[in-house]
Amino acid sequence: MNRTFLLAISLAAVTTVAAAGPIEDQIRFRQSAYSFISWNTGKIKKQVVDQPATYNKEQVIAAANAIAAVANSGLGALYGAGTDQGTGWKPTQLKPEFFKQPDEARRLAIEFNTAANDLARIAQGGDLAAIKAQFGKLSETCKGCHNSFRQRD
Amino acid sequence: MNRTFLLAISLAAVTTVAAAGPIEDQIRFRQSAYSFISWNTGKIKKQVVDQPATYNKEQVIAAANAIAAVANSGLGALYGAGTDQGTGWKPTQLKPEFFKQPDEARRLAIEFNTAANDLARIAQGGDLAAIKAQFGKLSETCKGCHNSFRQRD
Repeated sequence: MNRTFLLAISLAAVTTVAAAGPIEDQIRFRQSAYSFISWNTGKIKKQVVDQPATYNKEQVIAAANAIAAVANSGLGALYGAGTDQGTGWKPTQLKPEFFKQPDEARRLAIEFNTAANDLARIAQGGDLAAIKAQFGKLSETCKGCHNSFRQRD
Repeated sequence: MNRTFLLAISLAAVTTVAAAGPIEDQIRFRQSAYSFISWNTGKIKKQVVDQPATYNKEQVIAAANAIAAVANSGLGALYGAGTDQGTGWKPTQLKPEFFKQPDEARRLAIEFNTAANDLARIAQGGDLAAIKAQFGKLSETCKGCHNSFRQRD
């Protein structure tokens, strides 16, 4: 699995909650969120892009719903001041630029949220080509944020 | 946050997918899933149990939807043979008993899934007392699985 491709970095576009605890907790929770996303994007990639013969509508819907629910969960609360330094499960890869370009960070987050919710909606339809196209759009939003705000592996 | 209380161990009750890769990946993904759940149960606990004056209907809905989407994501695929040993983000706490009592594991997983989906449904209603009661039921399913199949911290 191409984890660089699959892991998404974003902040909440829709709902935010108050401080999510110590810096290390925020980093660990967001690493968990994106790792869980990467498992689900991996399942969709396998069934929709790499091995379409294995496509299972219900499984792709479940994976797309999981990604959308993470995107809608208020991840912005996990990007408190100072969380460009520190260790959750591993050292964070968030660049300091994230905090210097809040408008761009917000724009990328909204793009990701929109793409994730669109994918969940389109997955319901069961049109493999449409799902594949939207999955491509979602992947672009992941890469967009990585390119701007995530240190390379 | 009481992580022992909040972390849930279960396997997929609804959908399952084929092998989810190497043992270390399966363990890391499931640790991510439950850690992400614990962030969301923490938000609900704060707003519904500990500080009900902070209750925000949309945030609780988002958190409950996130938990349900994880529960519905096919976690069973992350409990492949041999995953009671190994290290994801950290050494697994899954007991070997998990594989010796598959009926009990499945029963607990279905309990968890049902409670999570019920919570997502009830959260929509905005009845704080009903949400609190259902959150208590969900928490009991977490503890039930921990007691049977999770090594203590």
